[in-house]
Amino acid sequence: MGLGQLDTIGLQLVVYINTERCCAKELVLFPRQTFPEHRHPPIGDEPGKEETFRGRWGSVYLYVEGAPTAMPQAQPPAGRESTYTVWHEVVLRPGEQFTIMPNTLHWFQGGPEGAIVSEFSTRSRDEFDIFTDPEIRRTPIVAD
Amino acid sequence: MGLGQLDTIGLQLVVYINTERCCAKELVLFPRQTFPEHRHPPIGDEPGKEETFRGRWGSVYLYVEGAPTAMPQAQPPAGRESTYTVWHEVVLRPGEQFTIMPNTLHWFQGGPEGAIVSEFSTRSRDEFDIFTDPEIRRTPIVAD
Repeated sequence: MGLGQLDTIGLQLVVYINTERCCAKELVLFPRQTFPEHRHPPIGDEPGKEETFRGRWGSVYLYVEGAPTAMPQAQPPAGRESTYTVWHEVVLRPGEQFTIMPNTLHWFQGGPEGAIVSEFSTRSRDEFDIFTDPEIRRTPIVAD
Repeated sequence: MGLGQLDTIGLQLVVYINTERCCAKELVLFPRQTFPEHRHPPIGDEPGKEETFRGRWGSVYLYVEGAPTAMPQAQPPAGRESTYTVWHEVVLRPGEQFTIMPNTLHWFQGGPEGAIVSEFSTRSRDEFDIFTDPEIRRTPIVAD
């Protein structure tokens, strides 16, 4: 994420397939590791990435647009709280799933044991993702 | 398949998600159970279904367009041999995968132990599939 804090911010990915139309991955999250708030905008004629998360192991706390949850189970990374703005909580355990529509804000955090989550989606073009936190860079920047 | 021989012709499906853009399923095949030759044609502006099969358990013999395999491991169901025309063999074991491009012929058969196969694809619209065997009906027909 360009923040240099992978233990707490980021995720681990196994990409099975990513064609112009279709993508499938496994996401692996450490305990309490957070993937920051972002959305997948339209690109040209495409409406933006649609993704379905399906829990496989452990648990993940997913936050999406909608009525804020009164007592959410996740906390944003310290010092970056202002860049987490959607608070409708969905908890995914193995066999539970949720579909995130294009161009809607979302973020997620591994539960106490971490999580493995399958992602089924349209084409992934991570470089177009828009993060709420302006310090996040998806593309590595090479320092002199 | 409208043939009344599920033990030998057909498959079992668990559909996780099937939206206008994206679909994910698990396919379960009995030992030597055959899913007949078919293709996914273009529908309107869409180029037809693209699908990736990923082996999860057991083995599956997949046949696609291309150079025929000299000694294929599967045999078509007895009496219907003439409706199996593509013979380029791809064997998928757990962790192996193959992507089937739109509108190309393919069929597959479970190995000696059967198979579980993940399918990641664009939208599934099974009712538009075109089978080589003219006796196959994907939509059940109610008899009087």
